[in-house]
Amino acid sequence: MARTTKAAPSRVATPKKRDREVLDAAARVFYQRGYSDASVQDVADELGILKGSLYHYIKTKEDLLFRLLLETHDEIYEILEEVAALEGLDPLERLEIYIRKQVEYNIDNLLRVSVYYHDLERLTEERRKQIVARRREHEQWVIALIKEAQAQGLADPDLDPKIAARCIFATIIWTYRWFKKGRDGREKVASTCAAFALRGVIGKQ
Amino acid sequence: MARTTKAAPSRVATPKKRDREVLDAAARVFYQRGYSDASVQDVADELGILKGSLYHYIKTKEDLLFRLLLETHDEIYEILEEVAALEGLDPLERLEIYIRKQVEYNIDNLLRVSVYYHDLERLTEERRKQIVARRREHEQWVIALIKEAQAQGLADPDLDPKIAARCIFATIIWTYRWFKKGRDGREKVASTCAAFALRGVIGKQ
Repeated sequence: MARTTKAAPSRVATPKKRDREVLDAAARVFYQRGYSDASVQDVADELGILKGSLYHYIKTKEDLLFRLLLETHDEIYEILEEVAALEGLDPLERLEIYIRKQVEYNIDNLLRVSVYYHDLERLTEERRKQIVARRREHEQWVIALIKEAQAQGLADPDLDPKIAARCIFATIIWTYRWFKKGRDGREKVASTCAAFALRGVIGKQ
Repeated sequence: MARTTKAAPSRVATPKKRDREVLDAAARVFYQRGYSDASVQDVADELGILKGSLYHYIKTKEDLLFRLLLETHDEIYEILEEVAALEGLDPLERLEIYIRKQVEYNIDNLLRVSVYYHDLERLTEERRKQIVARRREHEQWVIALIKEAQAQGLADPDLDPKIAARCIFATIIWTYRWFKKGRDGREKVASTCAAFALRGVIGKQ
């Protein structure tokens, strides 16, 4: 088996590009077949490489799922950092941009996001905890923004910031279940979701 | 096989009670093992009956899933009918009660709702379409309420009613992913979600 584990050189120009290719293929296969029914062989077939080449890169099917979810978190964390770094915004303006960008990310990565929410529970306990911890960074950041908006008199002071944050994430995340390319406009959906969620936080003024 | 298909009489006092028992057991097993990994034998074990007794009731594992999702739709449709029949409410008041009651249903049926959204795609095409058609009844009803509220000057006239309806369902449905008994109060969560979603529809007045 070890002798067949070399990937075709032309497919692995850079580690980062190979990562993307492999994880995108895994997302497609897990989405189409369902994680339980999919095999490493299916992912290799999707990539057009030998299964041995994949074992050079990961040991188990679960490794593929874990790396896919980690990479997705790296990408959505970049959005958080980018929005956190913007200057001259009040908490609500910052929140609105964050929601818009996260919705756009979901819309641009429907398969990945679908696998994320469908198969997270398939990870072993320890790995699942790592992913949930990274998700919590986002929750805490949004809760802090809501509290800041409340302290500045910009948002309903009676609103429970934790429940409100969950409603905001609901609005962001659920797009992966209903957004259809061709039918729904990306910008319109992102800005409508952001406006909807923001109003929920502002409440009666 | 046919000779072993009789269910133990004590467990099947009424067809409706047996339905609930069987489908609740199926929901638990599908939730815990994942639908793909679960078997009819697992569901029989959960019920403490012979597998043959289940085959008296259903032919395949998919029959169990389909009946579970149909029964769930029967139950949530009852909520819609009940709220539609209430008198003396404006469209927003009706919408608020609908959201509150649907959130409460989700919270009271976390396993079922989880299986619904996790395993709907495992149904054959024709059955999946039946379920999606029933879901559409709810969407159309909520969209009509939003339009009515807009026509009466109660809601933001510039809001796209379809996208708003999807944001409302996001707020309702996503509770199954984050609600935790003991940590979150049922009434508080239901009323906060309803207020959040309603504000999203009302917008600037």
